[in-house]
Amino acid sequence: MADIQEPYLLTPGPLTTSASVKRAMLRDWGSRDRDFIALNARVRARLVALAGGADSHVAVPLQGSGTFVVEAMLGTLVAPDGKLLVLVNGAYGQRMVKMADYHRRQVAVLETAEDQPNDPEALERALAADPAISHVAAVQCETTSGILNPIEALAEVTARHGRRLLVDAMSAFGALPLDAREVTFDGLAASANKCLEGIPGLGFAIVRRSALEAAAGHAPALSLDLYDQWRSMEQNGQWRFTPPTHVLAALDQALVEHAAEGGIAGRAARYRENCRILIEGMRALGFSTLLPDHLQAPIIVTFRMPADPRFLFDDFYDRLRTKGYVIYPGKLTVAPSFRIGCIGRLGSAEMQGALAAIRATLAEMGVASGQPAAPAAVINQGPSS
Amino acid sequence: MADIQEPYLLTPGPLTTSASVKRAMLRDWGSRDRDFIALNARVRARLVALAGGADSHVAVPLQGSGTFVVEAMLGTLVAPDGKLLVLVNGAYGQRMVKMADYHRRQVAVLETAEDQPNDPEALERALAADPAISHVAAVQCETTSGILNPIEALAEVTARHGRRLLVDAMSAFGALPLDAREVTFDGLAASANKCLEGIPGLGFAIVRRSALEAAAGHAPALSLDLYDQWRSMEQNGQWRFTPPTHVLAALDQALVEHAAEGGIAGRAARYRENCRILIEGMRALGFSTLLPDHLQAPIIVTFRMPADPRFLFDDFYDRLRTKGYVIYPGKLTVAPSFRIGCIGRLGSAEMQGALAAIRATLAEMGVASGQPAAPAAVINQGPSS
Repeated sequence: MADIQEPYLLTPGPLTTSASVKRAMLRDWGSRDRDFIALNARVRARLVALAGGADSHVAVPLQGSGTFVVEAMLGTLVAPDGKLLVLVNGAYGQRMVKMADYHRRQVAVLETAEDQPNDPEALERALAADPAISHVAAVQCETTSGILNPIEALAEVTARHGRRLLVDAMSAFGALPLDAREVTFDGLAASANKCLEGIPGLGFAIVRRSALEAAAGHAPALSLDLYDQWRSMEQNGQWRFTPPTHVLAALDQALVEHAAEGGIAGRAARYRENCRILIEGMRALGFSTLLPDHLQAPIIVTFRMPADPRFLFDDFYDRLRTKGYVIYPGKLTVAPSFRIGCIGRLGSAEMQGALAAIRATLAEMGVASGQPAAPAAVINQGPSS
Repeated sequence: MADIQEPYLLTPGPLTTSASVKRAMLRDWGSRDRDFIALNARVRARLVALAGGADSHVAVPLQGSGTFVVEAMLGTLVAPDGKLLVLVNGAYGQRMVKMADYHRRQVAVLETAEDQPNDPEALERALAADPAISHVAAVQCETTSGILNPIEALAEVTARHGRRLLVDAMSAFGALPLDAREVTFDGLAASANKCLEGIPGLGFAIVRRSALEAAAGHAPALSLDLYDQWRSMEQNGQWRFTPPTHVLAALDQALVEHAAEGGIAGRAARYRENCRILIEGMRALGFSTLLPDHLQAPIIVTFRMPADPRFLFDDFYDRLRTKGYVIYPGKLTVAPSFRIGCIGRLGSAEMQGALAAIRATLAEMGVASGQPAAPAAVINQGPSS
């Protein structure tokens, strides 16, 4: 589905994007000119609609990578005298703890293993025990492992205790639903360059308007002040500081293509099929997934490192790269692993192509099976519905 | 010189860029793949070389607009117990004061009028009077007015007093020299999308290595921690968080084109000629520049608002826009004005074209002359050499 001769990116991003999204970057925009102001308004309206937040929330785009907007969301919405509880089961949860430390905010951590989802019952107990906690932060799909966290259940517990939920929806937004009309959250942060299949260079937050209105003076840095970014944009439709104009134009086109594919449901269907093809094919080669299927988000899959001593990951990576497929190293702290993504402008042909390249590479390396050394800690279950 | 039918951007950025720079964005890059790591290393080496800093400084790119990297530079290099003195003669100096307030740093201000350069003698007195000042911050070309500040003299005073200089070189880097072998500074911050004629979406700092090594733990936010960004990049050649891959690829191409034009000297020559054509042509139409020529940087020119009541800026802007030229509103606090930029992929043909469009627009509007109401506060002098 990519139209240019270059490797397919089976990673958590940057991703393979369509040629038409990239071609949207072939013009220059005056950032204070009316055409760009109209484009910006259009993109913001589409983003907030995708989150079901048109009546309650606003979309605030921010320059930089996804991490920048997660940090801006935390730094702006958690007041200096607030306290953040972070649900951690991977690197992105840990990163939010680090941010709160930078901001000198009170922070507590509720950690589960990297192959275990966040635990709503443990959250229930933590909130009951500590009334100082004002905000709960969670990661919808933790790409460290590829696990899907139970955001709906976490949101229910958080709201029932009168606390505010902030979601890192980075790798899920646009493919996994998170609808403000059904799930109570004050903010979610995501990026142009994940499931929306835009270009890296900007993120955005979908924030409850009333929470943002109360957030003046909180942010630890001017550039990361989501309140100031929003207020200024509401005044004249413009960005405070030079926006990544070309990247925003690409996102505008990516959103058109997202809608044409059937929106969240359409995109999710393609990614689920990509994920199914990948996991079935890899299991047929002896590989083992870290996660059981019911915990696996159709975003990125972690495979345990094969036991065969002839399987050297760097060699495997390079050989696949030469065949036109870029995969991703592991990020687990508990076990050697690697990851293969299912998102971006890839379909079944590309997933089958990747599997064929993996089969050929294993043969070249003399690796008979992808089977890992130890049995998986969690027994794999049948394919999820 | 632009190859696509779209308005020319006579602004301080985003700017008109070459078609070849934009075409460099037509492929996707794996940000942890070796091709991208090589591209990143190449860009960093070119940037530090342009600042004459290869032996003493390092280039640290950062996601976001120029403001992000200015804020990262201040927040990382000024220690929590340090004190920043900001030389202010426009909005960008004021913005640095605001950043220091966000960071809860001690800050002092030395202000001159918007049409007056920073004053090295006043700096001398301020540093002598306040030994607590650890860092001095200045703007090389303050695009509020377009004025050129005397960075060399400020650097000499600052170094003689044993303090550290941080320069916002945003709108000047690549066209106005600032060479670490001749001028003593700890850091300068600039952007891909000004005189380097790249695409907006990333900035960079050129930082003295020893200053950066001493800056661990200072930054007010993870995303803006230039020390962490640098240390991580030194370890594996990769960005900590998703880089704007396409924007970096465009900068790589823009740097090739910058070198082909003769580097800083070549680019400066074109911009000076653009500026000369613009000012001469505008004066012939009766317009008056805010600045005398010896204070005017060849980046962006501020013109006083004409006295003729038939001159309505919004109408003037719209009519020029229709003719294919985007100009910029004024930012002065002291007098009504507007601005026209000289930078970006524009040459004498485009500047002459803009003047012809301005002439035609004045005729349409029935404006006989661009002459402002009051005589200019500073008497214009002959063209600078």
